[in-house]
Amino acid sequence: MPVIALGLDFGTESVRAILVDSEGREVGSAVSPFEHGQIVDSLPGSDEPLPERYALQCPADWIQSAAAATKEAVAKAGLTGEEIVGIGVDFTSCTMLPAKHDGTPLCELESLQSRPLAWPKLWKHHGALEQAERMTSIARERDESFLRRYGGVIGLEWFFPKMLETIEQAPEIAESADVWLEAGDWFVWRLVGGDSDSLVRSTCQAGYKAMWSAGDGYPSQDYFQAVHPKLAEAVANRMPGQSAEQMRSPGQVAGQLTQAMATQFGLPVGVPVSAAIIDAHAGVPGVGAAEPGTLVMVLGTSSCHMLNATKMVDMPGVAGVVEGGILPGLFGYETGQAAVGDAFAWLRKLLNRDSFDDLAEEAMSLPPGAEGVSCLDWMNGCRTPLMDGSVRGAFTGLGMQHGPAHLYLALMEASAFGVRWIVEMLRHGSADLPEANQAEPTSSSNKGVPIDRIIATGGLPHHNRAFVEVYADVLGMPIEIHPSSQGPAVGAAVLGMVAAGPEKTPFSSIAEAATAMASVPENQRDLILPRLERTQAYEQLYGRYRQLAHAVAQRRI
Amino acid sequence: MPVIALGLDFGTESVRAILVDSEGREVGSAVSPFEHGQIVDSLPGSDEPLPERYALQCPADWIQSAAAATKEAVAKAGLTGEEIVGIGVDFTSCTMLPAKHDGTPLCELESLQSRPLAWPKLWKHHGALEQAERMTSIARERDESFLRRYGGVIGLEWFFPKMLETIEQAPEIAESADVWLEAGDWFVWRLVGGDSDSLVRSTCQAGYKAMWSAGDGYPSQDYFQAVHPKLAEAVANRMPGQSAEQMRSPGQVAGQLTQAMATQFGLPVGVPVSAAIIDAHAGVPGVGAAEPGTLVMVLGTSSCHMLNATKMVDMPGVAGVVEGGILPGLFGYETGQAAVGDAFAWLRKLLNRDSFDDLAEEAMSLPPGAEGVSCLDWMNGCRTPLMDGSVRGAFTGLGMQHGPAHLYLALMEASAFGVRWIVEMLRHGSADLPEANQAEPTSSSNKGVPIDRIIATGGLPHHNRAFVEVYADVLGMPIEIHPSSQGPAVGAAVLGMVAAGPEKTPFSSIAEAATAMASVPENQRDLILPRLERTQAYEQLYGRYRQLAHAVAQRRI
Repeated sequence: MPVIALGLDFGTESVRAILVDSEGREVGSAVSPFEHGQIVDSLPGSDEPLPERYALQCPADWIQSAAAATKEAVAKAGLTGEEIVGIGVDFTSCTMLPAKHDGTPLCELESLQSRPLAWPKLWKHHGALEQAERMTSIARERDESFLRRYGGVIGLEWFFPKMLETIEQAPEIAESADVWLEAGDWFVWRLVGGDSDSLVRSTCQAGYKAMWSAGDGYPSQDYFQAVHPKLAEAVANRMPGQSAEQMRSPGQVAGQLTQAMATQFGLPVGVPVSAAIIDAHAGVPGVGAAEPGTLVMVLGTSSCHMLNATKMVDMPGVAGVVEGGILPGLFGYETGQAAVGDAFAWLRKLLNRDSFDDLAEEAMSLPPGAEGVSCLDWMNGCRTPLMDGSVRGAFTGLGMQHGPAHLYLALMEASAFGVRWIVEMLRHGSADLPEANQAEPTSSSNKGVPIDRIIATGGLPHHNRAFVEVYADVLGMPIEIHPSSQGPAVGAAVLGMVAAGPEKTPFSSIAEAATAMASVPENQRDLILPRLERTQAYEQLYGRYRQLAHAVAQRRI
Repeated sequence: MPVIALGLDFGTESVRAILVDSEGREVGSAVSPFEHGQIVDSLPGSDEPLPERYALQCPADWIQSAAAATKEAVAKAGLTGEEIVGIGVDFTSCTMLPAKHDGTPLCELESLQSRPLAWPKLWKHHGALEQAERMTSIARERDESFLRRYGGVIGLEWFFPKMLETIEQAPEIAESADVWLEAGDWFVWRLVGGDSDSLVRSTCQAGYKAMWSAGDGYPSQDYFQAVHPKLAEAVANRMPGQSAEQMRSPGQVAGQLTQAMATQFGLPVGVPVSAAIIDAHAGVPGVGAAEPGTLVMVLGTSSCHMLNATKMVDMPGVAGVVEGGILPGLFGYETGQAAVGDAFAWLRKLLNRDSFDDLAEEAMSLPPGAEGVSCLDWMNGCRTPLMDGSVRGAFTGLGMQHGPAHLYLALMEASAFGVRWIVEMLRHGSADLPEANQAEPTSSSNKGVPIDRIIATGGLPHHNRAFVEVYADVLGMPIEIHPSSQGPAVGAAVLGMVAAGPEKTPFSSIAEAATAMASVPENQRDLILPRLERTQAYEQLYGRYRQLAHAVAQRRI
């Protein structure tokens, strides 16, 4: 008799609840949008415009929408809720907030609800650009060893720059904060307790977004002091939950569902809840990729590419390498592209079209290289390898004979070239960055980590196969489209199953659960194969992309 | 009692007939489209696709449409036709064709009508790219002095490359040609006779498009032999009309209207017809700009900027300097931009919009620099200063916040930066070309020629003042919009008036006729003034444009 786990998958606009049984069947699913969505124009109930780079969220939305989606999924599955044995949670990251000791978000205090910086900052909030650059440059000056695990750059979307932004720009709000934490950790904390003792933090979020590692913990107090004394003070006193005991990996139990939450969600009291995981990272167990060497591409608004390997290699350009950050016992490499679905939506709007469907056939019938049009897909900055949110995109080679289909193909190709750059970087241990002082080419592959299989998941591959075809042609490798369009949600359910433990489930490891619940048997895989003649043509065109990227990265154009 | 002249202004899609009297009144005007327009997809009556770079025309269209437009203009003016004292003709260039001794175009021979290269090649026909490059490089090797008058480059749209293309690719068609000539010269020939004896050639077309000069004639037989023996043979034997007597300046009489043509056009037999002029160049007398130092910008599908000066300066990048090529006794400098109205039409189509009208207000309310979007306006190659039809355009600095208004403003700015580059080149005698080996900056203005007034004419300024405002801001100079949107047509009428001679008209020179018929009194001029704060902002942004142009010109992106 299969048992059932609940996965809660938090996106930017909504949360999905999915019910997956121990034999891999999705027995129910529902999506509930957040009442306030992304808060980018003004705070709820206010007309005052927010600064341009702000993106906030409302924490009450997370609880209400998760409860609504869970109840709907349970009802759709024809269940009562009593059948659920465990809960897993994946969340956007770094989405983070300041709270009181009892878990109350500062933005729910009457005295602070009109202050934007008291609200949770969404992952894409870019108010901490200056802070991130300063933290990076101080870390470089001090030759901080943690920096090497992050490609030498602290991202502007990460935890400590966002914390520092508030400390510097609204010190009185920072003074009111008892607890700074990731939104995923906050949500799990709410499910299982809500006082300081019950707070646990995920090693995934901490490892990828807050420079934490199992060996060294967070960066040193000396470093934080060098950045800002109040930051050092806050890390020491306002971040409970950083003991080895309280730092837990995804799949480990964070606690049990409280009575109040059980009622609100329609689930049994005491159901174990897994420590949170970053949304994209949940895609790895979510597609059953439990072995090293498989690159899992989660393709959505932005994209996140994850790879597990058996060794740690410091390489400039990688967003983060965390031991056990995705799967226990392996080194998880995270890389990403800042605009994928977002860039397509932008181009579609720019070209004043309702959809690209009527352009796809024309675009795919063009030869590789879009008859001379090149694109750089940095409309939202470059995540890997530059880790630079300030660079911008381009179209070049534009002539009178070119139309929207050329731009559409060129953007697909640019996105694919971006993945190729990432794959080469991981394999060779170097991104060949223009800034790098390279006395000799770094083609020796023993400096990197192997990639022998590629799986695509996320929303994009399912409504746009053409896109994956271009990826396969450019990479010269088959790409497997995972049949679930809900890789991260399934991954969260896998983690919920693992949290339930071997007594209640057939599984004693994430790898076992992931294989049983999410992998596709080899003979049933949906493979997109590269077309040799296009792959050959893309060899040279990739060089053109790199030249354009080089010129933009060096601010030469 | 004012007398009336007819100007026939041949564009790419249609011909305009305009009747202007000796006091500057436009008494009638009509436009007649060419039945076959531009022939770019397939020949009339054929389904066979033409090669991509081909653009042809049908010579019968020119006669039929000119006659129809003339009759309509005369009727609209309430005249009989007998009142017309002279005819001037401006024509696109280099539009050229092969013909028989009696003027019959080869494409009208039954044996050749299915052969694309037997048809007239329109100015924008780009089939002779390879020939133009070869002719340039041989001229450079031989250090041919004629090359210095053309900025060191023979254009791919010019006369001899187009001739050579046919000689090489269809030698049997070249063998059938008795006469190679400009379409403007062909049309005038048809009006006044049609046998070899009555053929005259315009010094304007010959000077700007066929490397002819009053002192040296065409390039030497040695040079043509070095390029191709058949080209040398054709220049010697298949180009009647090159004696000093048969080369005539615009305004000089080419001949008198024949009986047959008088009947077809509804005009008196024997009316004098002026030698032809290039369409854009007709804009100079057409706006009454008879003095040196006035830059006349003819802004249309592409743009042509003409300047008269009192001295000859060889400068890389100028399209041509011809003594007396525009006005007698002055050195005419021709420069241009390959895509202006064309580029706007392309962008409008790309962005799937019916017009830019609803974007203009938003675009013009953006700060200079379009919030980070840069454009290079080389969608149809770069005429001045690169003389390179193979380079292409670009948009850079693209981010998620940018929409169609940003691209629209960026394109206007790019076009204006292109004019600024041309103005600096003319004033300084150097284009600061990236290829140039410049040991020291060439800022000394005594190497160039003065520009102290700018007049805009052509179709664009009248339906898009915003565009001229951007030009004025970028150039930091007032720009005068000439009230006639038909500068070249009026200029053709001026030349027709001059051809009629001092017995029948009040004028004894082009300058006198141009001033009386086309200039605007100083106190009635429509001036667009630069806005200081925008002019200052454009200083730096111009550097950004030049950097982008530099990178594209050097094939670095």
